[in-house]
Amino acid sequence: MRTSRSVKVSELSNALLEEIVSEVRPLTQQGKVADYIPALADVDADQLGIAICTPDGRCFQAGDAATRFSIQSISKVLSLSVALTLYEDGEIWQRVGKEPSGQAFNSLVQLELEQGKPRNPFINAGALVMCDLLESRLTAPRQRMLEIVRRLAQQNDINYDRVVARSEYEHSARNAAIAWLMKSFGNFHNDVSKVMETYFHYCSLAMSCEELARTFLYLANQGRTQDDESAVISPRQARQVNALMMTSGMYDGAGEFAWRVGMPAKSGVGGGIVAVIPGDMSIAVWSPALDHSGNSLAGTALLEKLTERLGRSIF
Amino acid sequence: MRTSRSVKVSELSNALLEEIVSEVRPLTQQGKVADYIPALADVDADQLGIAICTPDGRCFQAGDAATRFSIQSISKVLSLSVALTLYEDGEIWQRVGKEPSGQAFNSLVQLELEQGKPRNPFINAGALVMCDLLESRLTAPRQRMLEIVRRLAQQNDINYDRVVARSEYEHSARNAAIAWLMKSFGNFHNDVSKVMETYFHYCSLAMSCEELARTFLYLANQGRTQDDESAVISPRQARQVNALMMTSGMYDGAGEFAWRVGMPAKSGVGGGIVAVIPGDMSIAVWSPALDHSGNSLAGTALLEKLTERLGRSIF
Amino acid sequence: MRTSRSVKVSELSNALLEEIVSEVRPLTQQGKVADYIPALADVDADQLGIAICTPDGRCFQAGDAATRFSIQSISKVLSLSVALTLYEDGEIWQRVGKEPSGQAFNSLVQLELEQGKPRNPFINAGALVMCDLLESRLTAPRQRMLEIVRRLAQQNDINYDRVVARSEYEHSARNAAIAWLMKSFGNFHNDVSKVMETYFHYCSLAMSCEELARTFLYLANQGRTQDDESAVISPRQARQVNALMMTSGMYDGAGEFAWRVGMPAKSGVGGGIVAVIPGDMSIAVWSPALDHSGNSLAGTALLEKLTERLGRSIF
Amino acid sequence: MRTSRSVKVSELSNALLEEIVSEVRPLTQQGKVADYIPALADVDADQLGIAICTPDGRCFQAGDAATRFSIQSISKVLSLSVALTLYEDGEIWQRVGKEPSGQAFNSLVQLELEQGKPRNPFINAGALVMCDLLESRLTAPRQRMLEIVRRLAQQNDINYDRVVARSEYEHSARNAAIAWLMKSFGNFHNDVSKVMETYFHYCSLAMSCEELARTFLYLANQGRTQDDESAVISPRQARQVNALMMTSGMYDGAGEFAWRVGMPAKSGVGGGIVAVIPGDMSIAVWSPALDHSGNSLAGTALLEKLTERLGRSIF
Repeated sequence: MRTSRSVKVSELSNALLEEIVSEVRPLTQQGKVADYIPALADVDADQLGIAICTPDGRCFQAGDAATRFSIQSISKVLSLSVALTLYEDGEIWQRVGKEPSGQAFNSLVQLELEQGKPRNPFINAGALVMCDLLESRLTAPRQRMLEIVRRLAQQNDINYDRVVARSEYEHSARNAAIAWLMKSFGNFHNDVSKVMETYFHYCSLAMSCEELARTFLYLANQGRTQDDESAVISPRQARQVNALMMTSGMYDGAGEFAWRVGMPAKSGVGGGIVAVIPGDMSIAVWSPALDHSGNSLAGTALLEKLTERLGRSIF
Repeated sequence: MRTSRSVKVSELSNALLEEIVSEVRPLTQQGKVADYIPALADVDADQLGIAICTPDGRCFQAGDAATRFSIQSISKVLSLSVALTLYEDGEIWQRVGKEPSGQAFNSLVQLELEQGKPRNPFINAGALVMCDLLESRLTAPRQRMLEIVRRLAQQNDINYDRVVARSEYEHSARNAAIAWLMKSFGNFHNDVSKVMETYFHYCSLAMSCEELARTFLYLANQGRTQDDESAVISPRQARQVNALMMTSGMYDGAGEFAWRVGMPAKSGVGGGIVAVIPGDMSIAVWSPALDHSGNSLAGTALLEKLTERLGRSIF
Repeated sequence: MRTSRSVKVSELSNALLEEIVSEVRPLTQQGKVADYIPALADVDADQLGIAICTPDGRCFQAGDAATRFSIQSISKVLSLSVALTLYEDGEIWQRVGKEPSGQAFNSLVQLELEQGKPRNPFINAGALVMCDLLESRLTAPRQRMLEIVRRLAQQNDINYDRVVARSEYEHSARNAAIAWLMKSFGNFHNDVSKVMETYFHYCSLAMSCEELARTFLYLANQGRTQDDESAVISPRQARQVNALMMTSGMYDGAGEFAWRVGMPAKSGVGGGIVAVIPGDMSIAVWSPALDHSGNSLAGTALLEKLTERLGRSIF
Repeated sequence: MRTSRSVKVSELSNALLEEIVSEVRPLTQQGKVADYIPALADVDADQLGIAICTPDGRCFQAGDAATRFSIQSISKVLSLSVALTLYEDGEIWQRVGKEPSGQAFNSLVQLELEQGKPRNPFINAGALVMCDLLESRLTAPRQRMLEIVRRLAQQNDINYDRVVARSEYEHSARNAAIAWLMKSFGNFHNDVSKVMETYFHYCSLAMSCEELARTFLYLANQGRTQDDESAVISPRQARQVNALMMTSGMYDGAGEFAWRVGMPAKSGVGGGIVAVIPGDMSIAVWSPALDHSGNSLAGTALLEKLTERLGRSIF
């Protein structure tokens, strides 16, 4: 699909990113900012940013790439990754599946029919199980996550947004229902309130595109960070997490996203999306307004545009 | 993930394929051959074959790669591809979705809740819509498909297995229910029996791994055949079909397959699987016994082994 | 609940019925006439009739009690009753349940989850099974039903409305889906088209309130007709059919109807309702406009008013 | 249905009840005692009792009619009745429906699809809403219920079984999920734990058949007690509660129960069933082993036998 306007990965530049940000910016007017809690509803919709990091240590960015926002469900990739370092494979996958949920209607239906085993770690039920796993093995799961993220992003002031975390917790009746339903099937071991607090803290992490691209470089780099090449997870696990993001990372829009963009990715209702071209780059985009599937509308368009310019997806 | 035993794509050889076929062959004893019609139930379970074609015109094979079998749902990729050449995008995607179905329980539930619009073209409901589309535009859809497949596979004696087609038709009550349900929602335009006959003929195509690898090379080659480089579909469409196979090609085992093998692929209950590494190769494997998701058990293992030896998936 | 305005059953009179018809008539302006086929959509909404028959041979009526209308699903009580005379209990109840369906969403979901066994004989799926049973035992099921109804109603010119039957058949895709789904589970034995034709003929029976009240007197009279006291079904079966109407006769409004009216009853989308006070009377009401559950809005109100005046329900 | 062996209501006697208890007693060996908590699992299965009270003040009994057991879901009729005295109709029925649930699969599915509004007050979700309503209006809902039951049963030592209540609470994950799901839809107002405690206390009420028959006489007596003829609820409400028991009182076996027994009734997993013949009598039966719907197997048979002997159901 290389075309006349296309550039090679080696030709990536801030200028290129600025160019596609300009092209996409009008789309920030479309879509709808998440409004179930005030802390999210109050964010300006017309923001748009992108950052890219490559395994050889280069980083590029454009637009509002330095502005922090609530990463929300993007944190689910982090809790899965941490769980992978604490447990044997079998211990994790007997409690959560690897299949897309494929549900336009809500997940309690499926969760009940499938006996309390969530379809994958990226739906709320599955992420709650990950947090339950972390709770069982870590003495301070919130502090531990902060340390990990700060190290990966190379920023010591990354923190939880306690207003967001509190606000989420106060609107958490459905998540409580999900956790209790799993408990009724024996698939939730710790105190529901305690685990939910951790879960909402993770969701409330405030990070910028720059920090996210840096953090998730390990998924493009066979599980290793760029700087010190220390392993976050194994090469095989990195491949597996990417596969999982491909099939289940974009809510009920994973198929459409694969069709348009063709990269493993994970989105959050704060408007962020993290995407990966294995071997080549990690990408973070952000724009607050969401499409009907709950994924950043302009963010998705930005990634699609990038794909076109690079002549590069994984397909 | 390149390891000491790993080989480059350029080092592909029949010997390598023979080697992994030997390693995997014991697994043909596991799994369960499809038995809903006698024509499938009677196939010997201990067969195992693989064939690979690359865009530069090389082909490799091992095991029972020359034996023809019933391609079954692999034909759904062909009917989609043909539909893509006959219709504008919008005409197709308003009638069928692009999302994984995510249903351990059966598809009529989802089809009804979603108003007769199938989740994707690779579940039965979606493939029936594709056949309905072909019926509306082609005067002889069965003959047309034969011509296409014979050209792509470069084999003039490829044909439908009429015993299989007839047998399927006689066990088609559920598919009739699916078609009528879609008709009740206005999403099925032609005569149900007629379209089902075409559908079952497509499923009954008898092809070998060799022929399949050759046929589906266009998906690894930006939509073009190797020999004459004529376009089957556009580069963008090839990318899109691959994306769709990635998220929805392996029944309710797509997530697990992506996790283990990491290639866009489509399976059939005859035990065949077609997989693609875009830019690099098309692959066809076959072994009749199926796993609990309905995908070839030894065939999947063969692809996983290939991935390991090549140090190469799309992730 | 006997009040100052209440009357005894022995004081029933045409005048009383005229009085409550007058009180309820304004409600005929509310609700919505069934419009899925023209033959039903064209009926004047402002019609309202009632007829009552008692085991001692008296009959009363008021309003449009002599006008014939399409009895639609009321015929499901007749097909069940005929099936009860042709089969052993076990033969019937292994193929259809006795429980309310409780589905605001449509019945294919439940039918699939419950392996093709309809919840009860009064939902479409269950009535189709009844017709399938009749098809297996009767050489001319349509003619036979006519004979039965003409005898019970004591009217030799009762007939099918062939325009309605034809029109229904042409809008029968969903029923075909239901029948085929049951066939896929082995719970449908005859030709789908043939049985559906019979089914739609039964639905198209054109009868008046007078004729219906007379026809269904057997349910208030221990299974026997009034005139010659010949048994239609046994006393036990009459009790059982009444029980079934109580729990499942009013679509997804059975609970509300029991709450307001408190009689076993069966409604049809033509606006008719047949109700029974066992031992005391059979009642037929008719008004074309339907409430949100698909039951005659003014007809239900008429029955509620009657209950109040008689100080008599079954509770 | 009066047969040669049948007796009139006026001929009711302890001897008659003893006779049918003897006939049914062998059935106590069938079925399965509820075992989800030890306090229920430990009850001897071979117990069988019946008590009947009539509006004219007579009471009859046989078998283990004086033994107290856990009334469990029978208490749902009491909480509904109390709610009816505290709220306007509209306040109750906007929060809970009147329709049978018709769910062989579990209620969270339906509860989610219907936006957190339970189908009726006799499924767990609906009863939790009743308790939530009581919590909002009563300062001491547990004490209040005790007073009511003691007055109706004319026994001052009726009490909660705190071991049962505690044990239920510890196995309440699914009920917590239900309550939280309703809370997420705004249909649950008080503290989940607090309301659940009340709910489980009500379920743990220990009463005998004698006490239950006496307590529920108001449903056979137009809402009034026998002794002092004070109104528990209005005649209309009594009719309505009976209607609701008819359509929804026996879990997913309401249709079958209506078919066999033909009385409004409510069962509990402790093996008790309360039934009513409006105007004639209230009946309580008890035998611990349950059928596949969760209703007392021998208890149901006892009621069926009584129906036959009396030649009397409501149909």
